[in-house]
Amino acid sequence: MYRIGLDISGGDYAPSEIIKGAILARKEFQGTHITLIGVKEEIEKEIAKHKSKESFTIIDAPEKIEMAEQPAASVRRKRNSSIVRGVTLLKEKKIDAFVSCGNTGAVVCASTLILRLIEGVERPGIALMIPTKKGISLIIDVGANIGPKPLHLLQYAAMAYVYYKLVLGKEDPTVGLLNIGEEASKGSEFVKRVHKLFSCASINFVGNLEAKDIFSGKCDCIVCDGFVGNIALKVSESCADVLGRFLIDEILEDPLGKIGLFLMQRSLRKFKKKIHYAEYGGAPLLGVDGIVIIGHGRSSSLAVKNAIKVAIEELSRGLNLEIKRRINEICQNSGVRQVFTV
Amino acid sequence: MYRIGLDISGGDYAPSEIIKGAILARKEFQGTHITLIGVKEEIEKEIAKHKSKESFTIIDAPEKIEMAEQPAASVRRKRNSSIVRGVTLLKEKKIDAFVSCGNTGAVVCASTLILRLIEGVERPGIALMIPTKKGISLIIDVGANIGPKPLHLLQYAAMAYVYYKLVLGKEDPTVGLLNIGEEASKGSEFVKRVHKLFSCASINFVGNLEAKDIFSGKCDCIVCDGFVGNIALKVSESCADVLGRFLIDEILEDPLGKIGLFLMQRSLRKFKKKIHYAEYGGAPLLGVDGIVIIGHGRSSSLAVKNAIKVAIEELSRGLNLEIKRRINEICQNSGVRQVFTV
Repeated sequence: MYRIGLDISGGDYAPSEIIKGAILARKEFQGTHITLIGVKEEIEKEIAKHKSKESFTIIDAPEKIEMAEQPAASVRRKRNSSIVRGVTLLKEKKIDAFVSCGNTGAVVCASTLILRLIEGVERPGIALMIPTKKGISLIIDVGANIGPKPLHLLQYAAMAYVYYKLVLGKEDPTVGLLNIGEEASKGSEFVKRVHKLFSCASINFVGNLEAKDIFSGKCDCIVCDGFVGNIALKVSESCADVLGRFLIDEILEDPLGKIGLFLMQRSLRKFKKKIHYAEYGGAPLLGVDGIVIIGHGRSSSLAVKNAIKVAIEELSRGLNLEIKRRINEICQNSGVRQVFTV
Repeated sequence: MYRIGLDISGGDYAPSEIIKGAILARKEFQGTHITLIGVKEEIEKEIAKHKSKESFTIIDAPEKIEMAEQPAASVRRKRNSSIVRGVTLLKEKKIDAFVSCGNTGAVVCASTLILRLIEGVERPGIALMIPTKKGISLIIDVGANIGPKPLHLLQYAAMAYVYYKLVLGKEDPTVGLLNIGEEASKGSEFVKRVHKLFSCASINFVGNLEAKDIFSGKCDCIVCDGFVGNIALKVSESCADVLGRFLIDEILEDPLGKIGLFLMQRSLRKFKKKIHYAEYGGAPLLGVDGIVIIGHGRSSSLAVKNAIKVAIEELSRGLNLEIKRRINEICQNSGVRQVFTV
């Protein structure tokens, strides 16, 4: 039985959607125990609304770290926030995983400080599952570490490789380095160094991946620094949003278009389901010594439920044990050491 | 009368679409003279196909710089390529602007070497017009300079500001810095320094722009380093492509969806026109001492015609004269100097 801790105070639609997500998860994932962490009265009030028969443990965390707060300072000051309490419960092994849709920076910061990192990992990275033409790709890092060193990216690659193999079940997943061109000679000095490192590491490195192929499914694992990854991710959201808006505007201006839109409601629903982040749940924070899942700030109950699912899958496959077992072997072979001494 | 030089050898659909674009441009932009630069026999053969009555000057440039060639080396070696010949004609004032859909790196490199930079500008930058919810935004740099210094970004901001005001006709356009968060404290060390610089420059700086707002129209001019800009641009293309594919797949699986699709053909055509890069023509290469427009590698005849239009607009507004006049005043005021001495 897995014990999942859920941050009730984080997210744009907290606490109501988060609680709804918890109820959905309890129903769907039999034998999973969920600990709700947040302002006790708020939790009890929300649960009462649903007249749910599901049982939860409630941990009172009266403080809230707001979405716009400065991460490090708020983690230091707000010991009784849902984020700090949740991560501490995980550290104390009172829960097996922690899921939060709150302030991403604060989750990363609290996790790093309290859980510490897996030996062999120097920085945590946020991995994100994105839908592609061929299935799912895992992109890391999308914003935990915005000034990384080349070695950090190698550690990200190793963790993504292990994740994809173990959790997404592909024997020898491919790893690509996000760059502005395919050739090894392309890109900034930083990216060129990373390319060299990747070339001698024990991952299935297939070379640079151009951003135009990010959704093509060419690579299972896509590695980049957190600044670039965050921009890429947010640009995709912005692009999808504006394209949808433009399209709907044109359709609604044309009576035939309106009828067409009505007829394709079923297709549109399936399309939205396919691309919606809620389907992919949360983003694993890899590298910290504990299972932490970061949900989207705009998480709906469905997204919350799926974030819990991601946590359960990581636990059931023993993800962190496998990362611990393999990280040094992947990152510290003779080739990598040579690149660093040259 | 403006004399536009057009590279006939560059682009995925060269020479046929480029020649078609030249014919379209001659018809639409009365009094514009177009010089076709490329392999003479190829040009004559293509023109003959169209039985066009438009007259062109032809400059024989028998060498070709392929799309995947290494820019600096190819520019050095291939003196008789369309790119080097075209830029040289511009330097010699035999044409007033040069338009190429060829190897972007080679165009940037040849332009920088042969035309030199405008005094006060240390690196050229590629600006791109993107459609937004409110109209058009200009994003610079999308790939000319992948390892810039903060001061280069200030020069980009200044040039974009002048461009937007003069060519796109807005009195005091807003300038935003592409970043992973809105607050001044957000982002890498590099971006934070740029933020400080922008804050004291004589541009209408409105702060950081999050990537999720890139298509929102919040800022008229969006500034970023060439690596990030290139990734953002290519991710957008990839995103639009994959969304279109997913949507069509779902629609075609459903008979009602198919009928709906048929009914909204007119709306779809208008939508595609709105978002297609061909509508926006080419990307101005700003900072070099001459008008150079870089077209998309996949440019159709329409895109070529519109790239020529961009060149004509820059010429008719006297863009480079205005950049020369204003660049120092914008970039070298006392505040900026202070940031650099601190």
